[in-house]
Amino acid sequence: MANYLITGTSRGLGLELASALLTRPPNEVRWVGLAARSKTPALQKLLENNSTRAHFIALEVTSPESVKAAVEEVEKVLGPSLGLDVLINNAGIMPFNPQGITKATDLMQNLEVNVNSIQLVTAGFLPLLRRGQKKLVFNIGSILGSIAHAPKFAGFPVSTYKVSKAAVNALTVQWSLELEKEGFTVISAHPGWLRTELGSDQADLAPEVGAKGILDIADQISREDTGKFFDIHVPGWKVGPSSNTYEGGVLPW
Amino acid sequence: MANYLITGTSRGLGLELASALLTRPPNEVRWVGLAARSKTPALQKLLENNSTRAHFIALEVTSPESVKAAVEEVEKVLGPSLGLDVLINNAGIMPFNPQGITKATDLMQNLEVNVNSIQLVTAGFLPLLRRGQKKLVFNIGSILGSIAHAPKFAGFPVSTYKVSKAAVNALTVQWSLELEKEGFTVISAHPGWLRTELGSDQADLAPEVGAKGILDIADQISREDTGKFFDIHVPGWKVGPSSNTYEGGVLPW
Repeated sequence: MANYLITGTSRGLGLELASALLTRPPNEVRWVGLAARSKTPALQKLLENNSTRAHFIALEVTSPESVKAAVEEVEKVLGPSLGLDVLINNAGIMPFNPQGITKATDLMQNLEVNVNSIQLVTAGFLPLLRRGQKKLVFNIGSILGSIAHAPKFAGFPVSTYKVSKAAVNALTVQWSLELEKEGFTVISAHPGWLRTELGSDQADLAPEVGAKGILDIADQISREDTGKFFDIHVPGWKVGPSSNTYEGGVLPW
Repeated sequence: MANYLITGTSRGLGLELASALLTRPPNEVRWVGLAARSKTPALQKLLENNSTRAHFIALEVTSPESVKAAVEEVEKVLGPSLGLDVLINNAGIMPFNPQGITKATDLMQNLEVNVNSIQLVTAGFLPLLRRGQKKLVFNIGSILGSIAHAPKFAGFPVSTYKVSKAAVNALTVQWSLELEKEGFTVISAHPGWLRTELGSDQADLAPEVGAKGILDIADQISREDTGKFFDIHVPGWKVGPSSNTYEGGVLPW
């Protein structure tokens, strides 16, 4: 009987995560808030097909005012006695830096949309998460944010995105350390390189495989795992040109 | 016969680094650019005492226009045949978050001043560094930016600074990977917890000890060490309440 809020649900991984959750029975998934700037046709359809427990939440993750309004909307819908159980901070961008880091001019944009958004959204929804049972904050990271793995992924021309995803991990750990005593689990995970608009059609995995990997982690996580950075597990995956192994477990910083 | 540029020289570690370099003979340190927003009395005095080879460079590290003007000023002073050998990205802030990460509202400010400044300044001075011999970009990081060490330093109420310094390390590695083939060395290091305005008088070490530690690393570094994150070495240091060991060597991400 958990309530979920997912950001960035207009397309890609966020939409897949919401779709997958909404196939589960209502005694497992009570309610899903689908946050996005606006409704895409695919999001609109998902909302219509699940009108009893899927709710659109207008949210611009970089705007404190928008976060405030979104929190008020979720509070209104859930009522005074219910809280959020799981917050999935999924919204993000991955602009290409084809000329490399030395010519990149979009570092601040990546840091604002991929990192500060998590700070704003998590801080905003914290009172509702405190009222929830599961108290899980799940930040979508990336193996490209693993500093230790950086040489292996040097060929991916998204340097500023990589820096932002390393910062997501650092932020995850700060939140984890602070909320541990309140019973929170705060983690990040690499959802895989997915064939979404963000990941391109050259990517390793169908988006639903990434969504399953993320929800497997969310289902199995326990409080002892707070502050960790996970890889998804894709059984039978053979390492391809992307160097991803999808073996599950914990990734290095 | 090396030319140095140091940012954030109005006080603290930056001023100490410049002072220490200017005690060396001119056949070792040819020229030092002391970049700062404005001249403090201490900076003014250092400039006056070293007028032949110390040069003030007006620089607001968060402003692309200011970086451009600073680059033009350094180019003018050095002339067409000389370049920069060493850039020390030292400018930074460490605001306190006494109420913790859940209430912090200064993440973007930390990311802009501590991280994006390095991007702007290094990109701006890259043509001059390419003309130099040593080709060293030295980013001042912090052990507080080590995600692996975060639990040990959880008591330091500077969560957003910690996130920014983790991002500095990730950015350092991106620059390192890209410029390796051109013979550059790009590293970060923890200068120690210093009794400066930023570090407070509760800190472990006198600022000159931190400056010596940083310059020891700069002196001894070789191209094979590019992309690493170093601790300073303070012989005889006993671990105190701050958990710093100052053993030198490489720190974990």
